[in-house]
Amino acid sequence: MTKEQDGQLADDKSARSGSATCPQQPGTKAGVTSREVRSTNSCLPHLDVSRRVLLSVLAASATLIGPPRSTSARAQAQVDLLPSWNDGTSKGAITDFVARVTQKGGPDFLPAVDRIATFDNDGTLWAEQPMYVQLAFALDRVKAMAPFHPEWEEMQPFKAALAGDMKTLAASGEHGIALLVTATHAGMTTAEFQQIVMKWLATARHPRFKRPYTELSYQPMIELLAYLRTNSFKTFIVSGGGVEFMRPWSERVYGVPPEQVVGSSIKTKFQMRDGGPELFRLPELNFVNDGPGKPVGINEFIGRRPIAAFGNSDGDLEMLQWTTMSAGARLGLIVHHTDAEREYAYDRNTPFGRLDKALDAAAQNKWVVVDMKRDWKNIFAFG
Amino acid sequence: MTKEQDGQLADDKSARSGSATCPQQPGTKAGVTSREVRSTNSCLPHLDVSRRVLLSVLAASATLIGPPRSTSARAQAQVDLLPSWNDGTSKGAITDFVARVTQKGGPDFLPAVDRIATFDNDGTLWAEQPMYVQLAFALDRVKAMAPFHPEWEEMQPFKAALAGDMKTLAASGEHGIALLVTATHAGMTTAEFQQIVMKWLATARHPRFKRPYTELSYQPMIELLAYLRTNSFKTFIVSGGGVEFMRPWSERVYGVPPEQVVGSSIKTKFQMRDGGPELFRLPELNFVNDGPGKPVGINEFIGRRPIAAFGNSDGDLEMLQWTTMSAGARLGLIVHHTDAEREYAYDRNTPFGRLDKALDAAAQNKWVVVDMKRDWKNIFAFG
Repeated sequence: MTKEQDGQLADDKSARSGSATCPQQPGTKAGVTSREVRSTNSCLPHLDVSRRVLLSVLAASATLIGPPRSTSARAQAQVDLLPSWNDGTSKGAITDFVARVTQKGGPDFLPAVDRIATFDNDGTLWAEQPMYVQLAFALDRVKAMAPFHPEWEEMQPFKAALAGDMKTLAASGEHGIALLVTATHAGMTTAEFQQIVMKWLATARHPRFKRPYTELSYQPMIELLAYLRTNSFKTFIVSGGGVEFMRPWSERVYGVPPEQVVGSSIKTKFQMRDGGPELFRLPELNFVNDGPGKPVGINEFIGRRPIAAFGNSDGDLEMLQWTTMSAGARLGLIVHHTDAEREYAYDRNTPFGRLDKALDAAAQNKWVVVDMKRDWKNIFAFG
Repeated sequence: MTKEQDGQLADDKSARSGSATCPQQPGTKAGVTSREVRSTNSCLPHLDVSRRVLLSVLAASATLIGPPRSTSARAQAQVDLLPSWNDGTSKGAITDFVARVTQKGGPDFLPAVDRIATFDNDGTLWAEQPMYVQLAFALDRVKAMAPFHPEWEEMQPFKAALAGDMKTLAASGEHGIALLVTATHAGMTTAEFQQIVMKWLATARHPRFKRPYTELSYQPMIELLAYLRTNSFKTFIVSGGGVEFMRPWSERVYGVPPEQVVGSSIKTKFQMRDGGPELFRLPELNFVNDGPGKPVGINEFIGRRPIAAFGNSDGDLEMLQWTTMSAGARLGLIVHHTDAEREYAYDRNTPFGRLDKALDAAAQNKWVVVDMKRDWKNIFAFG
């Protein structure tokens, strides 16, 4: 397997070219403010337009463990439930908000039933570089399925996917990426797909950190999820990624049960086969839970307006607007990837998780912008 | 307002014609088994085909009270949590099933996280005769909106709706009903629609019982919902009805919070207006959660396979199959409307909630068939 094939293309390319020497990406800003950071992979072929198609997948049933136990108020007062967060304005803004909405009799008090919190996944709860995890999954699926599809050797975008030729893959556009997703994510039952995801996650490794992708979840955010639940929040994942790609492991990794995961999906069909019922995954988009689709998905799946939302990219802009532009105490938070050493540094120039409009909106709307380098003591549980 | 206008058409018609003298409905069976009952309204124009279109609506945010408190195991052992159920095979099948899946160390034990129970709404949790409540709502909406739509006086199906002419309304088919639904359910924000629903429910009265529709919920089923939750089940509503029509009151009436309500929906669009975000309801179907759509909806919204499902009509057939045709202890239950005196008696011949294929399937699959007349001590909380 070449380096390009195992997903290191992004890092390698940026290392070779250096972001300072990259040609300006169309549609990105030339000016760089002090709050911005240089992308580690700003010269990558521009895949952003394809995300909506790429990450459209389906729900899978899951057998999962119970939710984490709540810590009592007394125990909570004694321990810091956010130990991976450095003290500072970001941590303070979070704990202040929670104190305000949970203080009985206070002007901003909200009953537990109203404490809905929504979290983006890619780049907010786990790493999305050098490419979305689900894209790495799709590329590995193409390789695994290739022996059964000899025609792929000469057919795009499969040929490019097999060769790790990200440039040609990106050039295939939404249509090409849609072919890739439907070929790898459809044509089996929901139960079968769940098994495929779990088997892949058990063996796949992140190209840089050489660990299972689920270990690339951010320890401070896992603490934050638990901290909110301890304060009677109901935590939801609201991701552009495929809902069926997340549900099999969301409870184990994040403590979020499958019914509290909202994501993109492809259509499924109920049918009886050999006398038994099954849900069969069809090669057709159902719902794209990204950008303006996020408030729509929140309304459709949750039916209530959140009081706190957490994201990291322009795909979270409308979710943050929907959550925070409302009367009463509200919290909007953006995870800003500023730590190239411990993780990645990127914002306005990246094919995955571009943070541009939402970064501008953060200042206008007083959303908390977490500086990963400054605010997080640890990034991953492994160090 | 005439009797026909206020929704009594179904009862009146059947009373006038008498079901025994009705011509055979196309597509219904001539033979009547001992388990069947005569429909009270089998001569109604056949609206069944329109249900999918009619009941397609959208989610609305809701401010709701917290879930009911659990009863401790000790208290549970001391009191009958199903007091409105007569002792017999139906009640016994329910309590036996719950005992089996909750007995630690037993062969059928399932952890709480797997205890997913799904309930149909119309005809299972509340009355659906003489017409679906949401249809009564749509007809009242047409009347309320008519002064702003003088063109409706000569335009079908609005003219028929205004005249209470159910026969012409039914003859307008799916296209006509779609016009009715989109005219009355779309064209406003989700917040506005929620207010419209709540205001209507506060004043509308059931034509026969002269009470708010929410009081037409079945006391034995409300007890069953609470009983399951006491035994650590997570209860969901999975209805062909509009999700936004149910969510504003599902917690208050059933103890089911909005995020645990799955239903049909129309599309919504996120937009900024006057500097604030809103979700605008579009005149376009999004998802029809009926028949084979119910397992699809369960998978999409819940992401897990239920172990118990409760319905009353053919629209619940696939949900019951998906739930019960699986390894391990499973419970399928059908509410059979057998009590014309206290509620309504209907099954194979009715425009609303036809129970035909699912009644046959119940015998094959050993689903519990609740005989309302025999099994329920009380039907409504008011008597």
